[in-house]
Amino acid sequence: MRSTWSKARAMMQMAAGLAVVATASHVAHADEGMWLLTSPPRDYLRSTYGFEPTAEWLEHVQKSAVRFSTGGSGSLVSADGLVMTNHHVGSDMLAKLSTKERDLLETGFLANSRDDEMQCPDLELNILWTIEDVTDQVNAGIGADVAPAKANDMRQKTIAEISKAAMDKTGMHAEVVTLYQGGKYHLYCYKRYTDVRLVMAPEQSIAFFGGDTDNFEYPRFNLDCTFFRIYENGKPLKTEHHLAWSEGSNQGDLALVVGHPGRTNRLNTVDHLRFMRDVELPMRLDQLWRLEVKFQNFNARSAENERIGKDDLFGVANSRKALTGQLAGLLDPSNMEKKAKAEKALREFVARDPKRRVEWGDAWDQIAKAQEARRSWAVRHRLLNAGLSSHLYANARNIVRAAVELQKPNAERLREYRDSQLQSLYTGLYSPAPIYDSLEIFTTEASLSYLAEKLGSDDPIVRIALDGKSPRARAEDLVLQSTLKDPAARKKLLEAGKDAVFASKDPMIQLAIAMDPEARSIRKKYEDEVEAVERANYAKIAAAKFAMEGENTYPDATFTLRLSFGPIAGYMEDGKFVPPYTNIGGLYERAKDREGMYGFDVPKSWIDAKSKLDLSTPFNFVCSADIIGGNSGSPVINVKGEVIGLIFDGNIQSLPGAFIYDVVSNRAVSVDSRAIMASLRDVYGAKDLVKEITGK
Amino acid sequence: MRSTWSKARAMMQMAAGLAVVATASHVAHADEGMWLLTSPPRDYLRSTYGFEPTAEWLEHVQKSAVRFSTGGSGSLVSADGLVMTNHHVGSDMLAKLSTKERDLLETGFLANSRDDEMQCPDLELNILWTIEDVTDQVNAGIGADVAPAKANDMRQKTIAEISKAAMDKTGMHAEVVTLYQGGKYHLYCYKRYTDVRLVMAPEQSIAFFGGDTDNFEYPRFNLDCTFFRIYENGKPLKTEHHLAWSEGSNQGDLALVVGHPGRTNRLNTVDHLRFMRDVELPMRLDQLWRLEVKFQNFNARSAENERIGKDDLFGVANSRKALTGQLAGLLDPSNMEKKAKAEKALREFVARDPKRRVEWGDAWDQIAKAQEARRSWAVRHRLLNAGLSSHLYANARNIVRAAVELQKPNAERLREYRDSQLQSLYTGLYSPAPIYDSLEIFTTEASLSYLAEKLGSDDPIVRIALDGKSPRARAEDLVLQSTLKDPAARKKLLEAGKDAVFASKDPMIQLAIAMDPEARSIRKKYEDEVEAVERANYAKIAAAKFAMEGENTYPDATFTLRLSFGPIAGYMEDGKFVPPYTNIGGLYERAKDREGMYGFDVPKSWIDAKSKLDLSTPFNFVCSADIIGGNSGSPVINVKGEVIGLIFDGNIQSLPGAFIYDVVSNRAVSVDSRAIMASLRDVYGAKDLVKEITGK
Repeated sequence: MRSTWSKARAMMQMAAGLAVVATASHVAHADEGMWLLTSPPRDYLRSTYGFEPTAEWLEHVQKSAVRFSTGGSGSLVSADGLVMTNHHVGSDMLAKLSTKERDLLETGFLANSRDDEMQCPDLELNILWTIEDVTDQVNAGIGADVAPAKANDMRQKTIAEISKAAMDKTGMHAEVVTLYQGGKYHLYCYKRYTDVRLVMAPEQSIAFFGGDTDNFEYPRFNLDCTFFRIYENGKPLKTEHHLAWSEGSNQGDLALVVGHPGRTNRLNTVDHLRFMRDVELPMRLDQLWRLEVKFQNFNARSAENERIGKDDLFGVANSRKALTGQLAGLLDPSNMEKKAKAEKALREFVARDPKRRVEWGDAWDQIAKAQEARRSWAVRHRLLNAGLSSHLYANARNIVRAAVELQKPNAERLREYRDSQLQSLYTGLYSPAPIYDSLEIFTTEASLSYLAEKLGSDDPIVRIALDGKSPRARAEDLVLQSTLKDPAARKKLLEAGKDAVFASKDPMIQLAIAMDPEARSIRKKYEDEVEAVERANYAKIAAAKFAMEGENTYPDATFTLRLSFGPIAGYMEDGKFVPPYTNIGGLYERAKDREGMYGFDVPKSWIDAKSKLDLSTPFNFVCSADIIGGNSGSPVINVKGEVIGLIFDGNIQSLPGAFIYDVVSNRAVSVDSRAIMASLRDVYGAKDLVKEITGK
Repeated sequence: MRSTWSKARAMMQMAAGLAVVATASHVAHADEGMWLLTSPPRDYLRSTYGFEPTAEWLEHVQKSAVRFSTGGSGSLVSADGLVMTNHHVGSDMLAKLSTKERDLLETGFLANSRDDEMQCPDLELNILWTIEDVTDQVNAGIGADVAPAKANDMRQKTIAEISKAAMDKTGMHAEVVTLYQGGKYHLYCYKRYTDVRLVMAPEQSIAFFGGDTDNFEYPRFNLDCTFFRIYENGKPLKTEHHLAWSEGSNQGDLALVVGHPGRTNRLNTVDHLRFMRDVELPMRLDQLWRLEVKFQNFNARSAENERIGKDDLFGVANSRKALTGQLAGLLDPSNMEKKAKAEKALREFVARDPKRRVEWGDAWDQIAKAQEARRSWAVRHRLLNAGLSSHLYANARNIVRAAVELQKPNAERLREYRDSQLQSLYTGLYSPAPIYDSLEIFTTEASLSYLAEKLGSDDPIVRIALDGKSPRARAEDLVLQSTLKDPAARKKLLEAGKDAVFASKDPMIQLAIAMDPEARSIRKKYEDEVEAVERANYAKIAAAKFAMEGENTYPDATFTLRLSFGPIAGYMEDGKFVPPYTNIGGLYERAKDREGMYGFDVPKSWIDAKSKLDLSTPFNFVCSADIIGGNSGSPVINVKGEVIGLIFDGNIQSLPGAFIYDVVSNRAVSVDSRAIMASLRDVYGAKDLVKEITGK
């Protein structure tokens, strides 16, 4: 559980839920793959689509791509720093910029002029600028005789040093990314922007038309887009690289997607997948189902609750639907059989050669043993690692941990308190975004009760959390007596230093202090007994795969920049063909067909504009590009690098894509570029924006 | 999980969830208590309210009270067999009598004449006719040296024989009820009626106005009533006993409730309550949260799904809200402290005397040990005992088990296949109520996936259930290839006997056969290791309590007839006084206040009738009578035995009443008799019904 739950955030959550790192993949088939921009499948693209991306093309799209700190993707679409993303990637900001009197999720927003653009409280945008292979540095001095936990510690320290050095040298934000589950390490430096302003957002009712019912389904009729603008030194950023706007696309056109897929587990071992199927996903779904019902109850209590709770509810429901689809994929034996067959072939390849056998042979069993041992403490780890699902608690824990960690040398700190992470930490911790008592009491009570439900009220950590009170009474005390709602108070307390923090009488601070020892110790247990084992042994499996299949493959997704692609094409579902495009006329038909059902109301602006709109304008389309959560907001471009669409979803068949890609029916869902322009012009009267984007 | 989930059914579910039997209670305070009609608290009623119920008064209300097989209560309100109950007790029948073209939940129903009254497919009404204490017979021959499991078996056999003999002798339906957790056994004989017809039901939107949001809340504005009529030999039943209609009530009046509270656990030991708090309730809530979200998704897919799924969704949400309230009560340490204090006093009373110590001293520890041991297999027991949540599976299991059990002597059968239970079994099994493929596939898939999520896909029973397929594919096979949708096919198969059943190629039958061995064995384990231990040791605790406090007390609820009472009185909530009555005008105000929110639409009939209605007419009221699930539909009467209201809910503060009664804020919620008459007359134009009930 996290303090906020935008769709994109929830997807990051997925990415962070297990080990941070993925694994080398098998040889790609058809349009499979989330490719590194440093090594796209050149032969396949040329032979299949006659497309050869040049170095300039790749650099241009890389530097036009934007990563959102809320967990999604976006792109620069003008020379004045205009950024396009999904409404559901921006909705966290829309909620934070709303007040009781002005609900931007409900009404949408259009800045009349640049002066009207609204500054976001805690959004960071990152643009990947340089890429460097640092594999040898990271592994330096770690022989085969070093135990996994020790090796993991050593690598973590080196990674911290590399990031810090890069940050000091370039002034950019630096991250070392673990690719191919330890097969490679890349140093990524990003240009980071924190003055980001809201330019335009449609009403949520059209952005998320069809609601949870149509989420992850197709056909769709959604204007899931929002525009922000990057500012630097108080002025719009002048951007050398930005994407041009196309005249549109046609069925069969090659669509290319440049974005930040969050997490896949395609090369997990079969035993690891069994753990996910039998433990990990059911455990996470248990929590989501519960929270979804509880948020519905909270939101239904009043219009104000609805306003402050709906973005969280959306995030929970969205994660629940995504994980349900993933679980269904793992519960389908045909998928597991494919996995088992591939694994068998690789293990036989390893077993046939004595050297390979010695070097890599035990990797699968080591991973299986670690997962098996973890079953008995997986729930406890998840609960303690998450802490309470409350903004105040999250702030309190960050203050408590930062106070301790910042006294240590950089390389010895918990990862999220290293120098390279501090800017993000402070952006979140000192955010002026509102914190609502009612929502905090609700989420705190729900979390406290959840702890008690899962661990039993007599468990020592539950006793600490409840302090002899009912979850409701304890939540009221914690929230109403905490001073941490004020960002200035948070800043003052952390800057006062460790002794002041530990002497604080703030009940949330005291609770975070009291829960931290066990939270830290179970985290360490996870890192030593699971993560370290996975890192060491997936690296062996990756090496074995490279040996068997060659290196022309893509790593699992890691919420870093990738290129996916595939033609615009329909698919078969329940024996019927689903065509690739919908059009604007279909929106009105669908609304009529589902009249009175929740989530299917067309906003007034679209009813009023109906006569002005060309109903045959393409609205949404699907293509077979291989994407996943985190890709939300990615631009879809043609071979000329022009925008033809905006990724906002995958179809239901794409959800098992976390584990396995199926070209037959896995589809990425986009808003068509023509629908974006038509609505800006004819529904919202945003002439300046149209001109800025298209030049017309 | 059960195949159907009406609110009342869900409450029976609660009643059946643990051991079947409750325990002797502590000395009652204030208006606490669900009293046996054979021993009402005469002194308290006389001294506090100046009311002395005569034998005639008690017999009259007993024989006017009706128990619904769907799990609720009702009462005879005319000489022609007219029965009043809640809409939510009758809604299961309304759903079963609906078709795609005629949705009785949506439109309501009023028979224009007796010929138009609609026969219900599988409803049984029972009226308690005679009561006999059979404690000595049941315990005959069971000495203190007989082990609990053996003693439990012996008692079960005797109970089967007593019931059978009573049935043969009287022709009535006979049940032996375990009271005071084994302190007493009563033989109840019921007049049973199976020709029951629907007379009148309002729209669900007014019966359940405010939906889940207002459920278990107060103030309320609900016309939660429905009328049925009992027929015998094709004619309306002539009823000697039926309740007269009052002119109404006033604040402070004594309200008496005659109904069938389902289950309380007020005298559970503290360790037993800990098990409920830490294991039982969280486990059941996990299931309900999940099912609620899944039903919402199913229902949102189409108008037809909504029609066939909404009564189930209501049942799930209602149970979820009730159990959430119960859990909150157990998570409140002040409640547990009261329990611990009372238990300590009783244990000290026992410990002080050597004879008492020897006889009863180990009871608490024995129960604690049984609950502790059960923790590791509680989930498995629950899953296997429930089977799949599908009508077809429930039918298949009944056929398979009946085929086996009916070959055994009556006293050796599983309880639900004894001669005294066969009529009910056949009513359900051969019901012509529709079974929908889409709903069956949905519930079957959800159940199969739930098994896999909880036990892991490699568990032997899960392998049996899934048969190498995904939950979706397996559910489609099971449902679409089963012949059991046809009641005639079910009858034919069971009547063909055991060999034919076991040779059947029907996939649902085959699945029920394959899952039965483990389901039976874990049930036996539960009966021997938990139920038998509870029975033996709660009987000791009951005896100790009788010795310390005397016998003037009430047993925990057992879904049998009880008398509760208390004045019509408001209460304080969050520092504000909640007055006891609402009025019809308040309905329109609340609807306006909550305009656009789900569940708050006033039906057209009430909008049209607004000008005819006296808006000051009392609509709902609260009194402090001690009720719980199963009491739904109970008549509220004055000391003259006249109807002043109709129980339909408890407030949120009443939910911990499953364990502990709190007179300060525990309130029963009723429809006022005057609102029922006003709506029959002015909204529905049901003049004949008004005349039949009131004589006017």
